[in-house]
Amino acid sequence: MVSLMHVNNEIGSINPLAEISKVCKEHNIPFHSDTVQSVGKIPVDVDELGLDFLSISGHKIYGPKGIGVMYMRHATPWIPWMHGGSQERRRRGGTLNVPGIIGLAKAMGLAQNEMDDHRKHFIKLRKKLISGLDEKFGDRYHINGDTKNGVPHIINVSFKDSNGSGIDGEMLILNLDVENICVSNGSACTSGAMEPSHVLSGIGLEDKIANSSIRISLGKQNTIEEIDYFLEKIEVVVERMMSTAKV
Amino acid sequence: MVSLMHVNNEIGSINPLAEISKVCKEHNIPFHSDTVQSVGKIPVDVDELGLDFLSISGHKIYGPKGIGVMYMRHATPWIPWMHGGSQERRRRGGTLNVPGIIGLAKAMGLAQNEMDDHRKHFIKLRKKLISGLDEKFGDRYHINGDTKNGVPHIINVSFKDSNGSGIDGEMLILNLDVENICVSNGSACTSGAMEPSHVLSGIGLEDKIANSSIRISLGKQNTIEEIDYFLEKIEVVVERMMSTAKV
Repeated sequence: MVSLMHVNNEIGSINPLAEISKVCKEHNIPFHSDTVQSVGKIPVDVDELGLDFLSISGHKIYGPKGIGVMYMRHATPWIPWMHGGSQERRRRGGTLNVPGIIGLAKAMGLAQNEMDDHRKHFIKLRKKLISGLDEKFGDRYHINGDTKNGVPHIINVSFKDSNGSGIDGEMLILNLDVENICVSNGSACTSGAMEPSHVLSGIGLEDKIANSSIRISLGKQNTIEEIDYFLEKIEVVVERMMSTAKV
Repeated sequence: MVSLMHVNNEIGSINPLAEISKVCKEHNIPFHSDTVQSVGKIPVDVDELGLDFLSISGHKIYGPKGIGVMYMRHATPWIPWMHGGSQERRRRGGTLNVPGIIGLAKAMGLAQNEMDDHRKHFIKLRKKLISGLDEKFGDRYHINGDTKNGVPHIINVSFKDSNGSGIDGEMLILNLDVENICVSNGSACTSGAMEPSHVLSGIGLEDKIANSSIRISLGKQNTIEEIDYFLEKIEVVVERMMSTAKV
């Protein structure tokens, strides 16, 4: 089978699933997509995208942690991955997480209804964020990923000083954390890993630039005032780090 | 490895884990027990029982559905069963079910504190239940499992009429359901299965007797009045089924 994420979790780029699914169909290959970063953010239609399988996580759409959805198109062949009892028509043994399922269903309904409003909100925040970074850092910062074809709620940026050296992304995150700003340097699944992000390496970034990157993820509760606060603090922190690095 | 349930879910018999774990240790075999039916009902101590692994489900101790515990003794070798992110120190990938974990921890504390009271309550209910069944059915009913060495909250009984034929256990369950009495004929994991219980077959019951069995499980909310109600209804239902069968 082919399995491909719909939206990259580190840089926000949208993969062309509809085109890829056509190639899969031509070769009779089942096609799965992890849509945790796209559901509730951009329209997701299993028929339009040509998906045989689709997965979603509750906590990415303001639902409960530890619950998800696996969509399987009717008559697609499958084998169970979790054996045991005959629950879920033998697809997955074990007593079901009833409160999680109910919470997720509610969250999915809300995500669907609120998607357009959230999207407008994210675009506004992102515009403010990028114009602020442009103003403060100019060519000493760079947006990673396909900005023309990406979701507005994930912004991945690298910093380098005037002589081309990157700054320490891990230290940048810690310095921002002191200011109560939470950003990351990759995915939550690999938090604490010291290697450069395989995604940033994959799109051709040198290790030192990949290691000077942070991922800024916007949520529906974020405000324009928080973007102002972020811009104020990151300017102070990055300038301090760059001047220290020069010494 | 050896994996053995602590208390049988269908008949309530307690397995001699401490003795079995000694044999496992002599042969250097890791020992796991599914203790979902024993935790909160009888004392469970991983050291006394000699367990390397132990599993628990939340919903069996009045906690949330869809969450459990896997205990692993320090330095016992393991390989991950669910791959993905580095959560749970790479033992099980995926975002954790935080509300479930918190609910389970609370339920475990309550189960521990209330165990002795529940046990006394179950023993009282069971005594009443069995003396009632003795009085009403005499040798036309039989308790399955090791009654000397069992938990008091699971009672598995078979019925047969005076010429030795069993009654239809599935029909008995349906007839009791009409009276708002919920009993089962095996485990929830195999509900709807038409084959005789492998547990009852395993302890030597003929198919027709195994198929005339029901499993009565007591909970902490059950009352002595409910036992009276159950006895009244089961007498009517079983007598009707036996007389119909004879015609």
